[in-house]
Amino acid sequence: MDVTLTGETRLFYIVGDPIAQVKSPPALTAILMKRGANALLVPAHVAPADLELFLQAARATRNVDGIVVTVPHKLAALAHCDEPTERARFAGSTNVMRRGADGRWRGDNTDGQGYMDGIAACGFDVAGKTALLVGAGGAGAAIAYEILARGAAHLKVHDIDTARRDRIVGRLGERFPGRISVGDADPSGVDLVANATPLGMRDGDPLPVDATKLAGTQFVADVITKPEISPLLVAARALGCAIMPGAGMFNAQAELLVDRMLGMETA
Amino acid sequence: MDVTLTGETRLFYIVGDPIAQVKSPPALTAILMKRGANALLVPAHVAPADLELFLQAARATRNVDGIVVTVPHKLAALAHCDEPTERARFAGSTNVMRRGADGRWRGDNTDGQGYMDGIAACGFDVAGKTALLVGAGGAGAAIAYEILARGAAHLKVHDIDTARRDRIVGRLGERFPGRISVGDADPSGVDLVANATPLGMRDGDPLPVDATKLAGTQFVADVITKPEISPLLVAARALGCAIMPGAGMFNAQAELLVDRMLGMETA
Repeated sequence: MDVTLTGETRLFYIVGDPIAQVKSPPALTAILMKRGANALLVPAHVAPADLELFLQAARATRNVDGIVVTVPHKLAALAHCDEPTERARFAGSTNVMRRGADGRWRGDNTDGQGYMDGIAACGFDVAGKTALLVGAGGAGAAIAYEILARGAAHLKVHDIDTARRDRIVGRLGERFPGRISVGDADPSGVDLVANATPLGMRDGDPLPVDATKLAGTQFVADVITKPEISPLLVAARALGCAIMPGAGMFNAQAELLVDRMLGMETA
Repeated sequence: MDVTLTGETRLFYIVGDPIAQVKSPPALTAILMKRGANALLVPAHVAPADLELFLQAARATRNVDGIVVTVPHKLAALAHCDEPTERARFAGSTNVMRRGADGRWRGDNTDGQGYMDGIAACGFDVAGKTALLVGAGGAGAAIAYEILARGAAHLKVHDIDTARRDRIVGRLGERFPGRISVGDADPSGVDLVANATPLGMRDGDPLPVDATKLAGTQFVADVITKPEISPLLVAARALGCAIMPGAGMFNAQAELLVDRMLGMETA
């Protein structure tokens, strides 16, 4: 790809473990170039035990302007943001950090916005509707916040890690009282079924919900980008459901991430 | 410039303070690309107080394969090499580090080789000749080692920091007994006059040697790349001396650096 690379180039990292599979370096660098920035997004492969050291050094590297955070670091990275957005605080995780002009680091989470923008681009409006979200990790928490922030009537959250699930239901219940509760693997009755777990990436994974209880009137969305159409979405499509694959979230999110990388205010 | 940039891209840093002026990121990345590597050399602006933190984090970043080190970090970086070359140890500084397959970091110093390769490319062979070197910092020490390693009959070293000068004369005197001594700003009588100080970069700098004592039969070389022809070289050229500007060193060194970045054995 055609990039600007000089001694004056500003650096952004995408930090994860593993990292080789990420598609953001060329995709987001292309957007940075389109916007006229002399800046690159480069991959950084960092183990969880080394994340704190990496972030401290990134702060001390004066031409590093920001960091995109991916699995498994999104939750841990939040603690390194001097000023997280409300969205990031409620999600309990951050996927993009940016150094402010005052040297303090802002942190936001665009996972929920990207996911819901992707669903909206498929013609589904969550306002006033009901939803079941499976997976209460970093991305799941961000999506849960965004579903409620966009006016869903009610959200049920399911996660086999019940402590993690209960934390999110409790925290978002304070912010959106009466509109969030604990769910299970039965998707019956809701308008939107949203997967935010990695289930479906590996052969032999169970489906995140009981697909025999899906109905063709439901919208089914997935975070998974590999395979392109997850087993859950294959089953949903066979029943006539409208679907959004993970690529929809990724594409909607790319411009949002570059917005935050080039400037972020949290006030 | 046209580069490969993916999640699998291997990273190299050039670390310095300041960093905006360096030309290596595009020059060395172009060589990396030409050799078929999916790898970038990106600038990292790190203050001296943060160098240790930066190097620790670079070691912990699994897709970082090596680091090019520039002013003012070349001396401090040597302490972070698990296995420095003899050349780096005698120079007391390193300008290129590389992670070995065993995870240990090798360190070399190509400044002297680049400088002397550049001079050789201008047709001057230092073997059997005498030389005056001005500047006993990181680059100066590397150049001093290389002048002697290439068979110079005698080398004089001048530096206003006499402690630094004496350290190099002492250390290289053990390795090349009887062939190195303390010099001064008078360049009379030697075959090669080599500047390794920054004098000449700023308006009003004094010349590193007494140019009124230069003779047209001497070869005069400089590390300075800005201005392209330093005031010392302007004076030398006016007297009929053959010269090598800093760009000669830079060009000769680019391929050497990429050799070390892509694989370095110190045994």
